[in-house]
Amino acid sequence: MTAHSESELAFLSIERAARLLRRKEISPLELADVALARIERWNPSLHAYLTVLADAARRQSKLAGREILRGRARGPLHGIPISIKDNFLTRGIRTTAGSKILADFTPDEDSDVAKLVARSGAIVLGKTNMHEFAYGITGENPHYGSSRNPWAPDRVSGGSSGGSAVAVGSGMGFASVGTDTGGSIRIPSALCGIVGLKPTFGLVSTAGVVPLGITFDHAGPIARSVTDACILLEAIAGKYPRGEMRPDYRRLRKIRPRRFRIGVPKEFYFERLDGEVRRLVESAADKFESLGARVEQVSLPHLPEAVDHAIYVVVAEANAYHESQGYFPARAAEYGDDVRAHLEGGHKMLAVDYLAALPKRRQIAEDFKAAFKHVDIILAPTSPIPAPKIGQSQVRVTGEEAIATRAELLRLTRPANLTGFPAISIPCGFTREGLPVGLQLLGPRWGEARLLSIASAYEEATEWHKRHPDLT
Amino acid sequence: MTAHSESELAFLSIERAARLLRRKEISPLELADVALARIERWNPSLHAYLTVLADAARRQSKLAGREILRGRARGPLHGIPISIKDNFLTRGIRTTAGSKILADFTPDEDSDVAKLVARSGAIVLGKTNMHEFAYGITGENPHYGSSRNPWAPDRVSGGSSGGSAVAVGSGMGFASVGTDTGGSIRIPSALCGIVGLKPTFGLVSTAGVVPLGITFDHAGPIARSVTDACILLEAIAGKYPRGEMRPDYRRLRKIRPRRFRIGVPKEFYFERLDGEVRRLVESAADKFESLGARVEQVSLPHLPEAVDHAIYVVVAEANAYHESQGYFPARAAEYGDDVRAHLEGGHKMLAVDYLAALPKRRQIAEDFKAAFKHVDIILAPTSPIPAPKIGQSQVRVTGEEAIATRAELLRLTRPANLTGFPAISIPCGFTREGLPVGLQLLGPRWGEARLLSIASAYEEATEWHKRHPDLT
Repeated sequence: MTAHSESELAFLSIERAARLLRRKEISPLELADVALARIERWNPSLHAYLTVLADAARRQSKLAGREILRGRARGPLHGIPISIKDNFLTRGIRTTAGSKILADFTPDEDSDVAKLVARSGAIVLGKTNMHEFAYGITGENPHYGSSRNPWAPDRVSGGSSGGSAVAVGSGMGFASVGTDTGGSIRIPSALCGIVGLKPTFGLVSTAGVVPLGITFDHAGPIARSVTDACILLEAIAGKYPRGEMRPDYRRLRKIRPRRFRIGVPKEFYFERLDGEVRRLVESAADKFESLGARVEQVSLPHLPEAVDHAIYVVVAEANAYHESQGYFPARAAEYGDDVRAHLEGGHKMLAVDYLAALPKRRQIAEDFKAAFKHVDIILAPTSPIPAPKIGQSQVRVTGEEAIATRAELLRLTRPANLTGFPAISIPCGFTREGLPVGLQLLGPRWGEARLLSIASAYEEATEWHKRHPDLT
Repeated sequence: MTAHSESELAFLSIERAARLLRRKEISPLELADVALARIERWNPSLHAYLTVLADAARRQSKLAGREILRGRARGPLHGIPISIKDNFLTRGIRTTAGSKILADFTPDEDSDVAKLVARSGAIVLGKTNMHEFAYGITGENPHYGSSRNPWAPDRVSGGSSGGSAVAVGSGMGFASVGTDTGGSIRIPSALCGIVGLKPTFGLVSTAGVVPLGITFDHAGPIARSVTDACILLEAIAGKYPRGEMRPDYRRLRKIRPRRFRIGVPKEFYFERLDGEVRRLVESAADKFESLGARVEQVSLPHLPEAVDHAIYVVVAEANAYHESQGYFPARAAEYGDDVRAHLEGGHKMLAVDYLAALPKRRQIAEDFKAAFKHVDIILAPTSPIPAPKIGQSQVRVTGEEAIATRAELLRLTRPANLTGFPAISIPCGFTREGLPVGLQLLGPRWGEARLLSIASAYEEATEWHKRHPDLT
């Protein structure tokens, strides 16, 4: 038996933690206690959690411990403490979606994800902070305090799954389930130096999620490694169509193609980037080449014109929800300024403009499909910039004109929400200031197994995911 | 060999005509000549065709005749003269969609339906008249003259596939392919005393159709009997999902359930009906009972509230097409008054209202799915009224308030466009004034085989479909 420091325990991989649990070297309660102690210590300043379920987590941890002792271990998540973003309905547990409007909402029913997490045996530490109604990409929240970047607490965590990324990145839980409508899993994962996967549209059920844009909403894992993300994905994923490969964290290496092909887009993704982001992502492409991958250019000709146009219609879908619930405009005063402004804009959108965007959306998917005939995955930055400061409404990316922070952060993650194809963000380095930078890898529809396998090849060959923020 | 009068030849069933062709008792050219003579005689007053392809039809008929003589008959449509509605693109043949805007439009490519019709060996006599851009239910057309009801030429044919129904009903061709977005196959078929089938959404390709509302548009057969409609459907249908039964006109009797169940809706369909329509449709239910069917009430509880709301969004889809083509508002003056007014209204529709209709639409489909757990098909009127007069903008159905003719004609056909489930109109009698009345039978998704089989049971037991208008 080995003695582990608190910090060692907090940052174990799930696979290793599960092995130690099965060997009885540690107990689920120890893991939960470590995470809860860190939450108690750091959550008041980092605002990762909106609701902490300390008693329930300890109770369930003891139960899981007894089950494991009796040889009834369910799988790698059994007894592992994780968190759930606060827009997943949880029975009997307050679910705010980061809003004031739902501040006192306690659902009668669990979301599908909450049910699947319970079935996996994972311990839910609490519900994580988020951009109000998932309608923003920075994680700034006027009602509950903004989640803060553990690498630089004066900077945003990214959002909307900001609390999830902060919790996972700072050792307040091993993983988290987030949602991603325009980048809300991948952006905070990139800005906080961890791994976030937006799976194929429909693979993880969004039943029981407070919606943002129903044809864009995805649920998926946030974790500290590709393998951990894969383990959580396996627990929450639905069925794959016949003939498609289901991811299996034990086979990531086995199914990896010997000489895989990586596409670097000619258009859109490398057009306007922070210099350090560009350098780190280009180094990642070189690293893949050194691993035996063939790296080649691919063309996505319609993206520059179509993306802004097509993604804009998410605002109409957001309004459809908020208006049908009677929240907007009736309770407009209860929204934060940014979300209220989005809803005011969305209300005016014409149906013809919504409909005109649908063919653009198909065009983008066709571009990707064509590219995936030539390459296994596509490589790009996740965010064109590292984490901006909290409250910073504009950024200058290449020294030129000032651009809205929100638009800039979202720019490179949006296409995968339009296509519904899977995309993962993994750490690929740090700026000179010490801010994490994310590498985005995009795969074809239902291509999670291959995507995760290739992402793990990079991870195995690098050390970025092993660095953790020094909380003081 | 039997001698046939011109009128006998014009009103042969397709099955019988095909048999006579194979036996060399008649030739395709004779059939085409009879139809073309009737077109020459009656089209100037009835306005069934916008474009008549006399030379091409004769040429192709001769070719078909030679092929049949050589024993190369392709199937029951080989050598049978039919027509195609003028919103199906036809290569090298003017395709107006009943509009002034497309008055000189000659496509470079065939619609899928035009290709399949050609492959079947059917002879295309011409392109039929229609409500402008299919955007109306009466068949009145300010640019080319309104198609007129062969049973009473001062009355509308119904639309938008009005020319198709007039052509088939008056012996100017054996069948026609129409389109149906809110009732545009079934309504003119009902008002003209013939058979019209709107198949399951997606079964017949609408690629190469000038669209009206892309999520509501269906293509399907118009014919003089259920068997003829089935023959044409088989020629133009795409694939059925695995496990679903494909219709086969030779097996309509064979697959008929011995004791089939017919549902009569408690809500919506019988709420406001012309007295004669009600009587004839109720008699049809009795007839089914006498044929051994079990007739029972079914509930479609959401229809009364949801249909008007849900179908209204077709206007947004219409605008999406007309605006993306640059027709509207740029060329607003070139539209007829009614279509222009619809487009002016549609332009203002908000995206949130479009999106709010989508759940209503799902509710309606759920109502039908629940009903089809209890019954094989649902029985209803096709139109609540017989053919109104041309130019009659309002009707009084039960002596009460005046209602817009358009809204009233569409009311009972719309639900099947919302669900995408198949529905057929077949003749079920005549008013005292001698106007035909249509019986609507609705089936579950992909249920054409069963639906046609049950419809043909009624047809076999009645004589309504054997009456033809007396053109003078």
